[in-house]
Amino acid sequence: MKTPIPRLVLNGILATVIACATTEAQAADSLPSWNDSPAKQSIVGFVAKVTKPGSPDFVPIPERIAVFDNDGCLWSEQPMYFQAYYIFDRIKALAPGHPEWKEKEPFASVLKGDVKSALADGEHALLEMAMATHAGLTSEEFDKVIRDWLATAKHPTTGLRYNQMVYQPMLELLAYLRANGFKTFIVSGGGIDFMRVFAEETYGIPPEQVVGSSIKAKYELREGKPVIVKIAELDFIDDKEGKPVGIYQHIGRRPIFAAGNSDGDFQMLEWTTAGEGARFGMLVHHTDAEREFAYDRESHVGKLDRGLVEGPALGWTIVNMKGDWKSIYPASPE
Amino acid sequence: MKTPIPRLVLNGILATVIACATTEAQAADSLPSWNDSPAKQSIVGFVAKVTKPGSPDFVPIPERIAVFDNDGCLWSEQPMYFQAYYIFDRIKALAPGHPEWKEKEPFASVLKGDVKSALADGEHALLEMAMATHAGLTSEEFDKVIRDWLATAKHPTTGLRYNQMVYQPMLELLAYLRANGFKTFIVSGGGIDFMRVFAEETYGIPPEQVVGSSIKAKYELREGKPVIVKIAELDFIDDKEGKPVGIYQHIGRRPIFAAGNSDGDFQMLEWTTAGEGARFGMLVHHTDAEREFAYDRESHVGKLDRGLVEGPALGWTIVNMKGDWKSIYPASPE
Repeated sequence: MKTPIPRLVLNGILATVIACATTEAQAADSLPSWNDSPAKQSIVGFVAKVTKPGSPDFVPIPERIAVFDNDGCLWSEQPMYFQAYYIFDRIKALAPGHPEWKEKEPFASVLKGDVKSALADGEHALLEMAMATHAGLTSEEFDKVIRDWLATAKHPTTGLRYNQMVYQPMLELLAYLRANGFKTFIVSGGGIDFMRVFAEETYGIPPEQVVGSSIKAKYELREGKPVIVKIAELDFIDDKEGKPVGIYQHIGRRPIFAAGNSDGDFQMLEWTTAGEGARFGMLVHHTDAEREFAYDRESHVGKLDRGLVEGPALGWTIVNMKGDWKSIYPASPE
Repeated sequence: MKTPIPRLVLNGILATVIACATTEAQAADSLPSWNDSPAKQSIVGFVAKVTKPGSPDFVPIPERIAVFDNDGCLWSEQPMYFQAYYIFDRIKALAPGHPEWKEKEPFASVLKGDVKSALADGEHALLEMAMATHAGLTSEEFDKVIRDWLATAKHPTTGLRYNQMVYQPMLELLAYLRANGFKTFIVSGGGIDFMRVFAEETYGIPPEQVVGSSIKAKYELREGKPVIVKIAELDFIDDKEGKPVGIYQHIGRRPIFAAGNSDGDFQMLEWTTAGEGARFGMLVHHTDAEREFAYDRESHVGKLDRGLVEGPALGWTIVNMKGDWKSIYPASPE
């Protein structure tokens, strides 16, 4: 399948060229949607020192690895993870072929529209639904299903398409880091293949730089054609202690920059910032009920408690969405 | 840990710049150690057509994914996989702390120097030994153990250090592909973390572009410091049908170029070359007993049978090491 080179990828390539050609950190106005607050200053200060040749904090380009959580860090996650909405829509679409779901939880609750009961079992229920609705799909079929869903589905409260609910300041941060020689990765509890469908176009992050939770897959011939088929077996949960492990298995080196927003990111930031030399840890704190959502300790989705308590003493930057960001979503979404 | 930027990585970055600045395939003399045979012509012809804008076979840069097996494809693998020698050396080094190994197979055979009996159980035995000798090591400790071994260990018949036994023509091919906008990956049955220690310096392939077999790992705090610790549990076998699955899970898109040398690479080449558009499959046939080793159907290590029979009809290029390569190892190894 041949697609045009996404604009963001071209930007990334140009960014590498710029990073080779210049040795200074790019100008701070690469972050126009950030207010000139301590949070922005800490980011710009970090990038300046690790990119300055001869600086004691200088980090060579291949080691400039930056990792980002997705849900609540690059795009919104309220009132529910967007992938959960996808799974609910998928269950409804497949329900006619699965009459047994009417009697079987958590499917029965989803079909009744009772999301709260469906998720009473927590993430386990979501995982079971994800496996049941994807097993048997080839990688190409899965890709198309997600692509079609993203192109049409609307968020229940904003009415926006889900990939319009990405954070403009974070898009700028990703581009700014790449312009300074960083390689940007997603490291999320979300489904690795789900995110790979839109990460390149939306964030400029190619599939091979997306790490996430996964179910297993197998290789087989279908009518003589080789395919990858998803199977209903858990492979890896990329959350909490799983995040540094996922980074180790997929990326193979410790990042120098990590951004998250919930206690599910705690260990990723902890491992990143405990490394030698200059390190950066950052938590996006959802404080803006008017422009986005305000939540932390009491939220089931994206709960942030330990990070708020321990993060500052660990040198992490807490980003206050309300005060630090001039805008939330892109002004003119694609 | 800060290390200088490896020369090959800098070359890779420059290559990206070149690939952006020029639109033609690089000159064919990027492969000076290849004789001007049909094999070389097929490589150059493929690269020319997928990089030519407007060509019906043009492939955008982000989709120029090239995957390479390691053992027997990028470096030698006879009379035994190099990683097996490492594991044997490691067992001998650890033996004083494991008196029980004297009575326990396959360790007992290794300690007696009876490699054949040690491997009578096949890859299962090797895996068991790998897990027993690595469990409990942190990622940093593991890295150092491999690094120290590579710096000192010598191949039993050539007397060379193992990372001197890399194929000069394949180093040129990797660089040539990168100069034409390809992203090069290793996809090998070998241990992912074992290869990551030397892949960047030796091949210009960064850790995040190495896919291989793995054991599991966990995250923990040791004396208050966060570490990744290897555990004695199988994670993934990246061989045969596992190779396309490993590519799907790690890279997330189908390569357009795949190189291997054994039937363990069959499915990787099959999946790669069955995709739409221009595709390239290549098998290195070990035909040079004088300069390297000659083996195929009868070899336990790197057995190549099905690929020789079915490959040509699938359009795969069979590289005859004796006739197609002017040299085998680098003339002046690092």
